[in-house]
Amino acid sequence: MNTTQETSTVTFLPANKSITVKNRSTLMEAARTAGVHINASCGGAGVCGKCRVIIEQGMVTGGESEKLSATEYVRGYRQACTAEISHDITVRVPEESGRQKGGLSTDIPLRHHARMHVFNIDELKEAGIFYPPVEKLCLELLKPDANDNRADVGRLIQGLADQHNKHRLVTGLPVMRKIRAALREKNFLVTVTLEQPVNNKSKSHLLNIQPGRWDHRNFGLAIDIGTTTIHGVLIDLYSGKILAKDSCYNPQMSYGEDVISRIIYAEKPKGLAMMQDLVVEAINTLIGNMLNKAVPPENSGHGAISRDEINSITIAGNTTMTHLLLQLEPDNIRRSPYVPVSTFFPPLRAADLGIELPQHCVSLLFPAISSYVGGDIVAGVMGSGMYRTELLTLFIDVGTNAEIVIGNREWLACAACSAGPAFEGGGITHGMRAVEGAISDFSLNPETLEPMNVTEGNKAPIGICGSGLLIIVATLFEHGVLNQSGKFNDLDSSRIRKGRSGMEYVLAWEDECAAGHDIVLNEVDIDNFIRAKAAIFAGVSTLMEQVGLEVGDLEQVILAGGFGSFIDLDSAMTVGLLPEIDPDTILYVGNGSLMGAWMSELSNHIRQDVVSVVRKMTSFELSEVPSFKDQYVASIFLPHTDLSLFPGAMQRRAARTPPSIPR
Amino acid sequence: MNTTQETSTVTFLPANKSITVKNRSTLMEAARTAGVHINASCGGAGVCGKCRVIIEQGMVTGGESEKLSATEYVRGYRQACTAEISHDITVRVPEESGRQKGGLSTDIPLRHHARMHVFNIDELKEAGIFYPPVEKLCLELLKPDANDNRADVGRLIQGLADQHNKHRLVTGLPVMRKIRAALREKNFLVTVTLEQPVNNKSKSHLLNIQPGRWDHRNFGLAIDIGTTTIHGVLIDLYSGKILAKDSCYNPQMSYGEDVISRIIYAEKPKGLAMMQDLVVEAINTLIGNMLNKAVPPENSGHGAISRDEINSITIAGNTTMTHLLLQLEPDNIRRSPYVPVSTFFPPLRAADLGIELPQHCVSLLFPAISSYVGGDIVAGVMGSGMYRTELLTLFIDVGTNAEIVIGNREWLACAACSAGPAFEGGGITHGMRAVEGAISDFSLNPETLEPMNVTEGNKAPIGICGSGLLIIVATLFEHGVLNQSGKFNDLDSSRIRKGRSGMEYVLAWEDECAAGHDIVLNEVDIDNFIRAKAAIFAGVSTLMEQVGLEVGDLEQVILAGGFGSFIDLDSAMTVGLLPEIDPDTILYVGNGSLMGAWMSELSNHIRQDVVSVVRKMTSFELSEVPSFKDQYVASIFLPHTDLSLFPGAMQRRAARTPPSIPR
Repeated sequence: MNTTQETSTVTFLPANKSITVKNRSTLMEAARTAGVHINASCGGAGVCGKCRVIIEQGMVTGGESEKLSATEYVRGYRQACTAEISHDITVRVPEESGRQKGGLSTDIPLRHHARMHVFNIDELKEAGIFYPPVEKLCLELLKPDANDNRADVGRLIQGLADQHNKHRLVTGLPVMRKIRAALREKNFLVTVTLEQPVNNKSKSHLLNIQPGRWDHRNFGLAIDIGTTTIHGVLIDLYSGKILAKDSCYNPQMSYGEDVISRIIYAEKPKGLAMMQDLVVEAINTLIGNMLNKAVPPENSGHGAISRDEINSITIAGNTTMTHLLLQLEPDNIRRSPYVPVSTFFPPLRAADLGIELPQHCVSLLFPAISSYVGGDIVAGVMGSGMYRTELLTLFIDVGTNAEIVIGNREWLACAACSAGPAFEGGGITHGMRAVEGAISDFSLNPETLEPMNVTEGNKAPIGICGSGLLIIVATLFEHGVLNQSGKFNDLDSSRIRKGRSGMEYVLAWEDECAAGHDIVLNEVDIDNFIRAKAAIFAGVSTLMEQVGLEVGDLEQVILAGGFGSFIDLDSAMTVGLLPEIDPDTILYVGNGSLMGAWMSELSNHIRQDVVSVVRKMTSFELSEVPSFKDQYVASIFLPHTDLSLFPGAMQRRAARTPPSIPR
Repeated sequence: MNTTQETSTVTFLPANKSITVKNRSTLMEAARTAGVHINASCGGAGVCGKCRVIIEQGMVTGGESEKLSATEYVRGYRQACTAEISHDITVRVPEESGRQKGGLSTDIPLRHHARMHVFNIDELKEAGIFYPPVEKLCLELLKPDANDNRADVGRLIQGLADQHNKHRLVTGLPVMRKIRAALREKNFLVTVTLEQPVNNKSKSHLLNIQPGRWDHRNFGLAIDIGTTTIHGVLIDLYSGKILAKDSCYNPQMSYGEDVISRIIYAEKPKGLAMMQDLVVEAINTLIGNMLNKAVPPENSGHGAISRDEINSITIAGNTTMTHLLLQLEPDNIRRSPYVPVSTFFPPLRAADLGIELPQHCVSLLFPAISSYVGGDIVAGVMGSGMYRTELLTLFIDVGTNAEIVIGNREWLACAACSAGPAFEGGGITHGMRAVEGAISDFSLNPETLEPMNVTEGNKAPIGICGSGLLIIVATLFEHGVLNQSGKFNDLDSSRIRKGRSGMEYVLAWEDECAAGHDIVLNEVDIDNFIRAKAAIFAGVSTLMEQVGLEVGDLEQVILAGGFGSFIDLDSAMTVGLLPEIDPDTILYVGNGSLMGAWMSELSNHIRQDVVSVVRKMTSFELSEVPSFKDQYVASIFLPHTDLSLFPGAMQRRAARTPPSIPR
């Protein structure tokens, strides 16, 4: 049997579409990728029995079902959702499983995901920007004698100037106390740890001294403190390689899911200290886990990595998370006019916050812009290189709130939109996070209006996650099931019915899913979705307008945040979430906050530049910009009241809506 | 009766010398000041009965004695040492009490003490150099609203720029945590404490914030950590005035009197930490005492000064004291080639050392030059203004060791001389510190060789202190009692006899003094004294030679150290301790270390300049300079082998030596 690394080619009939997929993919996955619709309500759980296909050539593993008779089995019928590919095969999709009544198979759109930002340490090195914030240097000093009795510290500093061209050094008391013994332990051969200067004017700090040669051992950490999840990366600052990654829930979650409830808790007596303790404890555990996981770099000698060898840490988080970490009172972040204590954070030592790292470990906390555009966004702007590009760029991080930054190397403007939690599955009747059983992809048989649900983990559906919601709304709109206001057209289908919250589309029947009830999407859900996407699009439009430009001027889009990884770009443009732009100019950076923190461990230029970037960034309070409301009202349609902004969306709708359905 | 503030005129006959003195001075003191010799072995204790004088006009208080008969008393006889002046009087010194056998009264030299460095805060202000290292500024900020929701910290920093022209500010986490509440407590009226930048390139630290107006309350400390004594001054940084002064013994004394024994103790397990604890505890007590003593400045409101209001501290001490305070291993200071851990000390917070001052209190520790030219000397050079003068200056601090600095604003060179403890009364048979009962001044009846001993506190003599030793040796040499080698000439006097350590001069007989034995000065003592002064003079000569100059080129002398306050300049030149120079160019600065620390609290220029001064200063190890030994050998004579260097000394000797004594 082939291994999972190998691939097979699947040909779907009657569409005659071939695709090469990894072995052990299901036929359903292959069909989705090939753009072939197969009815599938149960999301791959093998329950609904609707996804029957016929293996005409070759063989598959599995795909049997009680819903198939022995005769059918012998004739090659299998369930596409449970049949695994292991050889080249030819598969026919029978009419009842997907083909249109007219006999033609239904084409479903291929998904366009954003280009992933791929990080390459070698390119960084070639470009000369691999420049970690801390370096280790080995040097051998002349021993003192009667003609040269300079002090130990002076001798070391002169040695660094002579042998490594290091100047303007500052030595703190803790390291000063170690110098005398360190020099003499290995006969005046020592390794020093130096903090790079933040700019030409600033001094370099001498952080540590070790007797002997240790210059290959230099480690750093990048931490993203999300409201929900804390992510960490352990980095070899000598090679630039990742040694370990880990994440955990933010334990503050027990005291409130969102930043507002955290702030309310922090306002209670001792609440702030407790919030800090929780996040610090989680960070300490995370660091411990990464150190346990990490394989020490080759040729570095001396075995496992200890906390004492971590010389640098970069932390990014939103403004509230940062305030809680530093024990700064976040009270006014939630009260108009939304004044944080600070947006710049002082140079500090992680150890002073209770983080179990050596006292000398240098720490950067990404600065924020305002109460609702935080260090996580600044980290994304820095780490994605947006601040260095000439292209007019839209950076957008979609979560409960959406943060928007537009600009380029010359100027930057930003705003936060209260999008609401729709993109994370919140405020949607059967919404959920993108975990197992969440419907995350979808297509529609335009004649029968039967769905093809694709779920996370190929499990029976439980609900709808954000990316699924986007695709469902876009698909229903493209096929004329929804009108521009997001209301259902009057169509004759058992899938469309009147429910408690207006009309609704039934994605999965109770007996096909694991929800314990029918899974539906109703007009209130769709309205919530439209308001969320409208807030974001209106934010982008308003920001562009404020700087005298139009949405059409954008040359690049950078997507960040968990939602962005699965986002179907065509769907996003169909519903008017993203402006219409060449999908090739859209870049996905994943967790922008973590990426920015991590990049700042690899390149001190980011630390050097971040202050001026933050100074350069103009923050807009959208609620204070009069035209924002107009922009918002114009955006609460599919895709927008101004259809000229979305020619592609309207073309797709025209092409896919059957003549039987009113456009 | 007149108060002590008033004065009276005393006329001495037959010399017919008049002098105006403070009331309650003794007749003996008046005579000494007027340059009239009166025999007095017992130093003013009223025991020896030799100082009989006759009141010819007016009256005195006291001066009675069992040694005076009733008849004598009625005729106006009194003991000069116990008779207090309260009115204008005329006094006759009878032949047996002081006059020469020929009937002429004996002139004794007037004392020339160095000009005291008088500190004048008003002059400092007029010269524009009153510029404490920390300032307090009051400002009222705009309240946030929807159109201006800058962060609290940004608002404050912008306010300081707009209202006080303060830029490049850095805010630490502890003060950042106070800003939100402080702004709102008094409706956005606040007082901030700012550290002045050390130079144009460096940033200003925002140290503290208080709600409301507190800019009149700003206090600083200057501390000198001496090997024996710790001195402190509490300063009002708003007015520049001294609020309290105090001193205490350095409690490390219990573990060794000198720096070497302290280092040896510090090398023991936990010894270094204990040495630090002791000095920190003493400093804490000293600060507490000064705060208790201090009267809060007028118009500053708000009552007593608390530790939390001390915003700045400057500490000076020798290299070993500084190492012990910082817990830097002093081990190599006592071992050739005498390498300290450091001569520069990092910017630090006194609180981190355990000193009970607020965390924000900025601290300067004066840098050192070498193991034996410490921060105390640097403080003296800075505080005395030597580093700014155009005059070629000799700075000399005499203690157990003597530290010598020569130079001016252009260049500086320094060295330490092991003078030995002679100037502090050590190594001298009947030597003692300058406390009550120490013979500190002296004159000689050239015919009878009877002494006039003046003691500290007018108490019966116990021994000889450093300044007394200098004057005794100089006087004996000037009068031909000692030859150039410091040996006694063969003279017929009961005061000169053979003792255990060669010939000796009896200063006081057992029954006239409180020592329990005769107080003598012998040839070994004199030899020790000559070696000590020779080491210093050879050090000065060698340093001058190293920079291509001669001793005669010196234009100014600055004396520091306890010894310097009482030093008779003529005597110092007679014995060859100081080069011959116009006494008007000699300045006494007292405790140079304390003065430097204190000046640095008043003028941040000193902090700004000290780094370049230390860099500019060339340190010489005298033991490594071949010609030092020659200079030393040439100096172990009175005043020197090269008599052309001391024409004044030789003139005085010629004038005062009676013809009966071999010159």
